[in-house]
Order: sequence, then structure tokens, then C-alpha cells
Amino acid sequence: MDDEPEVAVLRLGHRPGRDDRMTTHVALTARAIGASRILLPGNASDAVATARSVTDRFGGPFVVEQDDSWRARLREWEGVVVHLTMYGEPVQTVEAAVRAAGRTTPVLVVVGAEKVPFDVYEHADWNVAVTNQPHSEVAGLAVFLDRLFEGRELDREWTDADQTVIPKATGKKVVPADEE
Amino acid sequence: MDDEPEVAVLRLGHRPGRDDRMTTHVALTARAIGASRILLPGNASDAVATARSVTDRFGGPFVVEQDDSWRARLREWEGVVVHLTMYGEPVQTVEAAVRAAGRTTPVLVVVGAEKVPFDVYEHADWNVAVTNQPHSEVAGLAVFLDRLFEGRELDREWTDADQTVIPKATGKKVVPADEE
Repeated sequence: MDDEPEVAVLRLGHRPGRDDRMTTHVALTARAIGASRILLPGNASDAVATARSVTDRFGGPFVVEQDDSWRARLREWEGVVVHLTMYGEPVQTVEAAVRAAGRTTPVLVVVGAEKVPFDVYEHADWNVAVTNQPHSEVAGLAVFLDRLFEGRELDREWTDADQTVIPKATGKKVVPADEE
Repeated sequence: MDDEPEVAVLRLGHRPGRDDRMTTHVALTARAIGASRILLPGNASDAVATARSVTDRFGGPFVVEQDDSWRARLREWEGVVVHLTMYGEPVQTVEAAVRAAGRTTPVLVVVGAEKVPFDVYEHADWNVAVTNQPHSEVAGLAVFLDRLFEGRELDREWTDADQTVIPKATGKKVVPADEE
């Protein structure tokens, strides 16, 4: 987040139709839980449009990129690479090391959809499991980012928003951002 | 989890087809991140089957129920009710209060799909936001549960599993549960 090296998320693989909502949720979760950028596959146009629209309305900074050259992005990433997978090392044992690295170097968090090619496991600096149980790449990403940022992302300020949600004990309150 | 009052998750609303994967991910996330039970709508048969199959293979205890009388379940719940919504109070300000309540009484976590009826907001003891940003009910549930349990769910032991994933720095290792 602010004043720190970037944390970006790379969504690997996308099956149009079947994965539209999952990829959209990956992108919106990346934005909401403190990443500054999402790299989406070229065929994930629905998710790209939704993530950009949410950023326009609710603020940024958050960059949505569409790019099919993920192998090159991984190889050329100037920082550390974390691959989230249920087969990896427990998040609770490696998060401190990732956090320490992230203080001085950008972090790329890789989130797979279909079967992830083995070279991703080999290229990653850490293969990280948010439990070694099958669940959801969206859930894994959310817990990983919340732990990486130690909750600081929840106090993030948003800029260039059109509208802002005001927390309420009961009901809904949304105001134009300049009336916040 | 073990030796504590129950934490259950209620999925509210489900559109067959469109919501199948999201509801499945809600159920698997509930299981993996420490809830002991999921209550799913009657028309969410795909998610019910997947959650039961994962529990059979990877262990429990985890109960999957199918039930359309969610208003009665909410009303008759003998414990506290938490409704996750982007309009609610910040998780970081209310989590300690929910955790304190959960030490002595069961917690029902309500996760909406379609537009949530207003009486749910009124009935909930807490309407809780994991950021006041739009993202994903799966991400919100995961972060909320991880914070509620303060990470203890990650060390949970599973019983009656057929297979177990052994954490690995690189690659995949899955063994029959009795060889763990």
C-alpha cells in the first residue's frame, strides 16, 4: 500500500463463462484487501470491466491490466513471487518471511484457476497454503493479503472515488465521496 | 472449533447455475476456515454435493445442511448472529466483541448472495464489513473467520479423512490419511 513496495496479484488462467465471477471476485478482493494492481488474462474481459468500474466508483489507486504473457511477467518480476496453493507451506509459518521481503521489494501473488503448470511452483519464491484443504482461491487470497498487511489495508484511504459507504450498525448509507 | 461453542455459516439466497461456484466456495471456505456447519438453500444441490464430497475425502467434522426455512433458523438461533455486509461496521472494530460472545454462545455467520432482505440487517446482532468496499462474500467470510479464530483454525486437526495434503515448499504431496 502507501509508501511501501508494490503488492500485485496475477490471476493465472481463465475460462470465459465458467470463471467470470471467480476471476471478478479475485480482482475485487485484490483491490479491497490492499493490492495495488491486478494482472488478468486477455480473455477475462468481464472481470477487467467490473474491476475498472468499481475502481472508478469507489476509488483507487488500483491498476487493472490485461496481459497474456504471464510467463514473461513472472520471469521479469523484480521482486519476490508468492504462489498460493493448497499444496504449499502453511501461511502461518511463512508469512513473516514474505512480509520482511515485502518491506524492501515488490511482491507478486499468483492465484491459479485451472491446473497450474509445474514451472510456476518452481519459479515461486514461496508456495503458500492457506490451510492445506481445498476451498477457494478468493478466500486464500483474502486471508493471505490480510495477514501480509497485518490488517493495515482495512484502514486504507481511497482517492478519486465517486461514492463512499459510511459504516452503519444497521442498514445502508452511501454518500457522494465529497460529502464524506 | 474443538471445545468451543459452534460457529455455523448460513448462505442466504442461491440462483442455480449462476451461483453454483460461489455457493460452493462459501461452503468450502466455511469448512476450511474453522466453521463446523454450513446451512445451504434447498436449491443449492451442487454446493451440497461438493461440500459433502470434500468432507468425506479430506475430513471433518463438518456438517452440510440443506434448508429453506432460513427466517426460522435465524429467529430460533440460540446464540449471536453476524451478518457480513459491505455496509456494516468495520470488522477490526467489532471482532473482539464477537469473539468474546463466541466464547460462551454459538455464532451464526450470515453470508448473502442476492439482495439481502432488510429484516436480516435488523435481526443481526452485528452487521460486519470486511472493508466497506465491494468485493466477494467468499473473501469476507474467510477474513472474518480467520480473525474470529485468531488463526487457530489453521492448526485444526481433521478426523475421518481419506487423504491428507503434506505441505511442501515445491510441488504436491498427497498421502492416504492413515500414512500421515
